[in-house]
Order: sequence, then C-alpha cells, then structure tokens
Amino acid sequence: MSSDTLLIIGGGPAGLEAARGAADLGCKTILVERLSRLGGTPISANYAALTHGMRDASEVMGEMIAAVDGDPLVDIRLNTSVTACTGAAGAFSVTLTRGGTDETVSVGAVIVATGFEHFDPGRANQQYGYYMYDDVLTLQDAEKMLKEKNFVRPSTGKPPERVCFIQCVGSRDRRIGNEYCSKVCCGVASKQAIEIRQLLPNCRVFIFYIDMRMYGYWENEIYWPAQEKYKVSYIKGVISEIVMKGDRLMIRGEDTTMNRPMEVPMDIVILSNGMEPSGGTKAIAKTLGLRQNTYGFINVAHDTLDPVSTSVPGVFVAGAAAGPKDLDDTMGMAGAATMKAVGAIRRMARGAAIKA
Amino acid sequence: MSSDTLLIIGGGPAGLEAARGAADLGCKTILVERLSRLGGTPISANYAALTHGMRDASEVMGEMIAAVDGDPLVDIRLNTSVTACTGAAGAFSVTLTRGGTDETVSVGAVIVATGFEHFDPGRANQQYGYYMYDDVLTLQDAEKMLKEKNFVRPSTGKPPERVCFIQCVGSRDRRIGNEYCSKVCCGVASKQAIEIRQLLPNCRVFIFYIDMRMYGYWENEIYWPAQEKYKVSYIKGVISEIVMKGDRLMIRGEDTTMNRPMEVPMDIVILSNGMEPSGGTKAIAKTLGLRQNTYGFINVAHDTLDPVSTSVPGVFVAGAAAGPKDLDDTMGMAGAATMKAVGAIRRMARGAAIKA
Repeated sequence: MSSDTLLIIGGGPAGLEAARGAADLGCKTILVERLSRLGGTPISANYAALTHGMRDASEVMGEMIAAVDGDPLVDIRLNTSVTACTGAAGAFSVTLTRGGTDETVSVGAVIVATGFEHFDPGRANQQYGYYMYDDVLTLQDAEKMLKEKNFVRPSTGKPPERVCFIQCVGSRDRRIGNEYCSKVCCGVASKQAIEIRQLLPNCRVFIFYIDMRMYGYWENEIYWPAQEKYKVSYIKGVISEIVMKGDRLMIRGEDTTMNRPMEVPMDIVILSNGMEPSGGTKAIAKTLGLRQNTYGFINVAHDTLDPVSTSVPGVFVAGAAAGPKDLDDTMGMAGAATMKAVGAIRRMARGAAIKA
Repeated sequence: MSSDTLLIIGGGPAGLEAARGAADLGCKTILVERLSRLGGTPISANYAALTHGMRDASEVMGEMIAAVDGDPLVDIRLNTSVTACTGAAGAFSVTLTRGGTDETVSVGAVIVATGFEHFDPGRANQQYGYYMYDDVLTLQDAEKMLKEKNFVRPSTGKPPERVCFIQCVGSRDRRIGNEYCSKVCCGVASKQAIEIRQLLPNCRVFIFYIDMRMYGYWENEIYWPAQEKYKVSYIKGVISEIVMKGDRLMIRGEDTTMNRPMEVPMDIVILSNGMEPSGGTKAIAKTLGLRQNTYGFINVAHDTLDPVSTSVPGVFVAGAAAGPKDLDDTMGMAGAATMKAVGAIRRMARGAAIKA
C-alpha cells in the first residue's frame, strides 16, 4: 500500500522550502533535523548577510521557519536522525532515531536536503597555517565577526589595517582531490570585503584569485561595487605560503598578471574555503543506498535535464547535498524536488506506475 | 470563482518541464507556444550537444516533448500568443491569439517561460566585424556547423587550421549596457572547442577570456579535459579588433597575463555572444504587467530566497526569462515555479487567502 507522506531530511533552506511547498500542495510531510533547531548552515555557521540580496541571515531563516512551524501538514522532528530504510518508491519504511529511541514511519517519497560542510583548511593546505596563526581565518570565522560588527585581529583585538582573501582554498585543487569549483566563494568573499570596508573605511582589502566567478547579476550587484565604490583590490595571483614577520602575516606568492613574485604584509588573511559534502550527506547516502560522486556528493541525472532525481526512484535531492550550490540554486532545486516527489506520490495514489 | 487551470507561456525546456510536473500533480495546464513546434531555443537555434551532459539536444528535447504530448491534462496551443490579461491570482482572464482569432481562457496561475535570445554581435561590437567577415561567427553559427559535423571556413569551404573564441561578447560590457555575466558562454565555448578538436585534430583552438567561469562540476567535466586532453589554449586577454590580412583574419589585442600586445592570425573567429531577454519575454512582461530589471529580464524576489515569484501575485517565472541561466538552473526554476503555481491554485481552491 502506498503512503501519502513525504519525508524531508534536513531543516536548512532546502528542507524548509520543500516542506512549505509540499504543504501548499496539500501533502503531509515529516521534516527531520539532526540538530535541536531548524535553519541549517546559515544559522549554525553564524552567517551575517546572505549572498546575494544582503539580507540578514537570521531574519530570512526565521521567516522560512515561521512558514512551516505550526502547519498541521508538517510534522517537525528535531534531534532526530534517519538510521535505516527499506522498501521502495511509494512505500518506504524509514527508521527515525531520537535519543536512542527508534520509530518506524511509512513514506511514499524522500527528499534529501542534508547540505554541505565548509572545507577545513587545516586538513590539507598546511602552507596557510590555519591552525598555527591566530590571524588566519576562514570565511566562516570572518562571517561571525562581521555578524557581531566587531572585525578585529584575533591576536591583538585591534582593527586590522590590511586584510586579504585567498580564493579557491579546498576548491579547484587536484592535490587535495577537490577539482570542482565551489561556486559561491568568489561572491561571499567579495560581499565580506564590502562589509569590512563599510566597518573599517581605512582598512585596505585585497582578494587574490584565479578567476573571479561572479556569474549572472552577481557581477554588477557585488563585483563592480566592490571594486568601484569600496575600492577592494583584486589581484590575479597564487599564494604559496604564509609566514610571520614581526607581528604581521607575510603572504608569499606570484602575481600572475604582472608575472612577478610578491611578498605582502597582512594583518588578517581570510581563506576562502569551499564546500564539501556534510557528514549527514555521506551518512544518508549510505543509509538510502544513493549513488555518490567521487567527492561524496549525491549523484543526479544531469544528462536528462534533471538536477534532483537520485539513483534510487522515489528519492530526490535538493541543495548542496548534490554539490556546490548557491541559495538561488538551492531554492530552485527544493521546488523541483518537491514537485517531483509529490507528483510521484500522487501518481502512485492514482495507481499509475512510477516513471523513472 | 477561482480557476483550477495553470497557464504556461513558452514551450522550451522550462515550459515543458513545468507542464509535465503540473500534470503529475494532477493540475490541468494550457501550454502556449508562439512557434509551430515545441522545444524552444535548443531546437530553433540548432543546438548540437547540450552543456553539460553532452547529450544530443534534439534527442533530449524530443524526450521532454514526448513526456507531455498526448497527456489529457496538458492542452498544447502552437502558433499562439498571449495578447491580453485581466483579473488577479486565482482568476486571471487571458486572451490567446492564434492566426487573428482570439479566445479567452480562465486560469488560476501563470508561469512565464519565454526565455532569452542570443546577443546580436553586429549591433554594438562593430570592431569584431560580424556582418563584414564571413569567417567571424557566433556560438550559434558554430553550433549549427558542429551539429552537421561539417566545421569549415565559410569563405572557402575548407577546414580551418586556427580557430579562436572571444569571450564576453555582449556580456560584462558596460559600453553596451549589459553589465551582467551570461553564465553559460564559458562552458559552451569550451564544449565547442572540444568538439572542434574532435572533428579536426590538427586544428589549433584558442579561447581569449577575462575570467573562465566554469562553476561547480563544469570545472572538471569541461574545463580540465579541454586543456589537458584536447589541448585547447586558454589565454587571458582582451581582443580589441579584427581585421583581414591576406585571406585570413587577424585579431589584435592584449595578452593580459604576459602584459603585451598581440596580433594573431585565425581562420575562424567565434564570438561568444551572451544572453538578452527574448522579444517574447519583453512583450509578455508588458502584457502581464510584470516588473522588469534594467536589461528587460523579468524581476524576481531574490532577497526573500525566491527565484521564481514575480511582482504580480499568481505569476511565476522559470528559466532565462529571469536572466542568464544554465539548463540546471532552468530545470530547478521550472520545478519551483510549478510547485508554487499549483500550490497557489490549490490553496485558493481550499479558500485560503493567497500569500505574497
């Protein structure tokens, strides 16, 4: 017997959007979140303003949570993990575990929205000294300080005079096995550069990059204002090493436009670390038997113009669980996954065979 | 009285995906296409292989058409335009015009999927001589030859020995008023470069670029094979002029990595022309009263994490009618627009007030 309920795994932007959309379509959902609160990475990683749109992350996520909270069609389960799954499209039997207690639910389709995690720059890029120097930060460390409107050198507590970003840390890097572009870091770094210049008008800000990837409207919403209004210096270059010189960081590398070596002092260096699949994404792929790509992200059927269907019929993926995505991508995928998942449930209810 | 029917305007990838998804959700749709056949730009512009996935465009679009053709819930209207609209969400009254005959239909919601058109490089970039030299092509001209597996110099009918692409023609260009990045041209040019090298192993292929924007998996699915397996030469540089020298094209510009002027002979120059809103997109925005951005694309509410809602409640947009999009974006948006449009129709049927 087929179930009319949709299971959504992950309570971040993609999962919240899917739950709201399914409820609008009149479909019952169970929304499972591993942590004790909804909101996903924008909340757990202390995002300040979202890229793009620049609205306050807590405010936007609060609106998304309010849109599902209390809806009789959305059954929210916090502190809960999916630990087993049997059955097939139309009649999955899924074990939900909360604090050692198991419950089995019957669902017709599943949306995986378990997201990404930020690349740990101490793991492989030892030359940047992330765990060695207090003033070497990640985008997330910087975001937290920007959210608190208190952007200072961790080593001294004083405002920096020179800050730089190093792009493609953990991305486009064959040595560490992440050949892909993480898609959002150019935009996020440029957004943070603007925010630093707004907070500290006398601080100089540099961005060292391979290619600036500001596609679509990011070009004129972020990149041009960063250069023209906020005087951020973009330098095509490769930074090979960070060392201490006195009480300052010294970055060493090559300016590939001027074709010459460079050695430049900085007060703070921000590593623009990319995306990797979250632990939750890797775990759920195993539990549900989903094909993953070489990086551990969930595989989808791109070649048939379908960015949300996984290798298991009845299981769909939305957001960065499928690879690097920005928030527009994620919202689109959440809608597409919901349309397909609810469509599959309805088709089965009508007795039609499920299409691949 | 609210209508339970969804109107979809445009029979390309976005419109076809929306129609199929709505039918799976049990929602009646009217799918309106201005031309005499479905398939949109991939068919009308003779696309060969799609980026990414590299599958044959006719084959993929044929599958998408077959998925809606004959479905009793999908009412397909070819050679038809939307010429007037009154009413509001839940009860729009829309005039469809076919060969001089008008018909008025009642629909509850609308999805605009009217797409883009390719920038005309003869309009503004006179220095590239598109209308002057036979061997200066657009991406679409090249695509048509690649589809026919007959890639030759138009002026001589012979295979070229040297081909180059010039990126960002009609994009990232303030002089002509298109400041945005068209998002797909780096990928499409690299795909074509691979196809040229496959057809003509002795032909040298160059790509002159500002930044190579191969986000996500395009990096290793297209960019790295183009460089390593197919030996395409990528040169960061600005081409200012194309002239004839003997029977060859001579491109003049600056190599911005080596920081020196260059003058290089080519047999074929391909202008990587970007996206502009289609005539249909500009016309439908006026007919439906949709807010447009400065370029004429349809405005959406990005700042609330909503890439598909327009300024008119009950009207949604999918695909490149909203700005530069790749096919993954388009499929995601089509699903999101369908989820929201059908959700709005169902909510109104349940008597609930429509949410913004």
